[in-house]
Amino acid sequence: MPSAVPFVGPEAQERDRGAAFKARLGANESLFGPSPRAITAMQEAAAEIWKYGDAGSHELRNALAASLGVASENVLVGEGIDGLLGYLVRLLVAPGDAVVTSEGAYPTFNYHVAGYGGVLHKVPYRDDHEDPVALFAKAAEVDAKLVYLANPDNPMGSWHEGAALIAALDDLPEGALLLLDEAYIEFAPDGTSPALDVEDPRVIRMRTFSKAHGMAGARVGYAIGAADLIRSFDKIRNHFGMNRTAQIGALAALNDADWLARVKQDVALAKGRIAQIARDNGLEPLPSATNFVAVDCGADGAFARRVLEELVRLGVFVRMPFVPPQDRCIRISAGRPQDLDVLEQALPVALSAARE
Amino acid sequence: MPSAVPFVGPEAQERDRGAAFKARLGANESLFGPSPRAITAMQEAAAEIWKYGDAGSHELRNALAASLGVASENVLVGEGIDGLLGYLVRLLVAPGDAVVTSEGAYPTFNYHVAGYGGVLHKVPYRDDHEDPVALFAKAAEVDAKLVYLANPDNPMGSWHEGAALIAALDDLPEGALLLLDEAYIEFAPDGTSPALDVEDPRVIRMRTFSKAHGMAGARVGYAIGAADLIRSFDKIRNHFGMNRTAQIGALAALNDADWLARVKQDVALAKGRIAQIARDNGLEPLPSATNFVAVDCGADGAFARRVLEELVRLGVFVRMPFVPPQDRCIRISAGRPQDLDVLEQALPVALSAARE
Repeated sequence: MPSAVPFVGPEAQERDRGAAFKARLGANESLFGPSPRAITAMQEAAAEIWKYGDAGSHELRNALAASLGVASENVLVGEGIDGLLGYLVRLLVAPGDAVVTSEGAYPTFNYHVAGYGGVLHKVPYRDDHEDPVALFAKAAEVDAKLVYLANPDNPMGSWHEGAALIAALDDLPEGALLLLDEAYIEFAPDGTSPALDVEDPRVIRMRTFSKAHGMAGARVGYAIGAADLIRSFDKIRNHFGMNRTAQIGALAALNDADWLARVKQDVALAKGRIAQIARDNGLEPLPSATNFVAVDCGADGAFARRVLEELVRLGVFVRMPFVPPQDRCIRISAGRPQDLDVLEQALPVALSAARE
Repeated sequence: MPSAVPFVGPEAQERDRGAAFKARLGANESLFGPSPRAITAMQEAAAEIWKYGDAGSHELRNALAASLGVASENVLVGEGIDGLLGYLVRLLVAPGDAVVTSEGAYPTFNYHVAGYGGVLHKVPYRDDHEDPVALFAKAAEVDAKLVYLANPDNPMGSWHEGAALIAALDDLPEGALLLLDEAYIEFAPDGTSPALDVEDPRVIRMRTFSKAHGMAGARVGYAIGAADLIRSFDKIRNHFGMNRTAQIGALAALNDADWLARVKQDVALAKGRIAQIARDNGLEPLPSATNFVAVDCGADGAFARRVLEELVRLGVFVRMPFVPPQDRCIRISAGRPQDLDVLEQALPVALSAARE
């Protein structure tokens, strides 16, 4: 089994470079922060951390189900999407089983598949979009147990209309489950999430409090799917794995629709400014339905990597896609005005250093 | 795979009975709470929950290593002992592999072994103590990959001197790893933890912030062992699985030795009072090196279960051992004076109802 780690975190990079980042725009965290109500709820709950969290995340699960218009039995709360991905792969993928994803899609999913002995088959992006038609065709070809698709996509920010996904699903082979990663769905246009019956056995969705709700450090994700499938997680999940304060904070965040609306507005503004900064430097911002912008640096992966390294050197934490031709881009998270001021100053410097 | 969950949490029991518990003495949580410094640190960090936690828990790991007098490479921070148990079983136990534990020991360990297809072999307690000699003999007999031993023990509260464990280790067969669960070690007499070289490849220890540090809801545990073994967790662990506020709170708790000393004193007093309450009711408290007391109800498991059910009915959350003859006992966590007042009032009522 490979010892490789899916990501190097910004703190590890800061230790390597011996200085803190001035702008933390690399992990698609929400620099706008969590709901003030969530902050207060977590502060008030701090002294009660001596209690184990509720093993069923009962209140949060019920509130999520109500907000989604599904039964509680269709929702599972877990330790972030990363944790839920691990559980799902363990449930469905035996050594040698085929799994399909896109070349350059979420590496933590690949990490779990490799860890459980699954065999990954990858299809390329098509015009910077994940390609459901090709993914499902590949699944049929290799008899896949599981297909990964993020909508909207990370790292490109592209997306498909829900109706297009539903149409494509006709070609998902029997016996394959579509894992639809909707981590960024709150930022996407209406209709991006496919309007499927929650009991449709072909699809499980995963969502998170890490992005729009600004709680990446809390590790709260949730899966939405058929009750039978959701129940099967109980055979393997870490029943007392949820942080109690995170459960309480997430519930408060879920109940603060105003904050979510404001974050979405702030993110839209920030993406506009990132796009403008990119254009001012002769670079091309890609359309995005997420809280980040993939910026086409106008050359190959080696050039984009030089730009990235210069930005990091200048104190701007960013990341980039892993594979060509998407690796012509760098990926910049939506930030506050002060974060984007740092970006605005650093980008021309980084570009000119990268061109030397 | 069985659908059974290792434990029913108190919140689920409260929902079933339609009322909150008056005294929460069933999960060996620390009712004395976490260090005030940890509370403050977590409150101050609440607004920064938008950041992912450090994937390596770098600061906490270094601080733990320093406090233990070992290298950072010998320490792994993870999502509670429960999470670390799951990782270790996954690393070492393939389907069909033999694993040895005590009949009636920690069910969450058994849950993970069953979940990864291991075959559990159990040896009985001996005089209410786990029996290292019998455990290691059984390991040799079945060619075990992994042996579980809690010292001090849960649910009985008994313990072995570290020197006795070291002597017994001579009979641990080649190829078997001893998983030494030291969740309650802070409450035990000096010398309970065996003075072994941390690079001894025969043993991995696990400890936690859930008990003496009063942070069960935070999910922070750590493993201590040979650097090679610790490194292997990196192949499978959820790299961004730690709650950021929990990392910060645990570090603050670790640095508050005064609070820990005070909790140990409070726990000692509480155990004395539980023992007295038991004796006042004609029951026999067992010696304990933990933060709970196993109380011998003086008859069989059916009787102890009736006592437990009556206590629960009266609003006192307690648990009990699962198998005879240990199931003649109920297990009562150390609580604050007000918690033990509730116990003192309820126990005679519960006993007389159980005797009807």
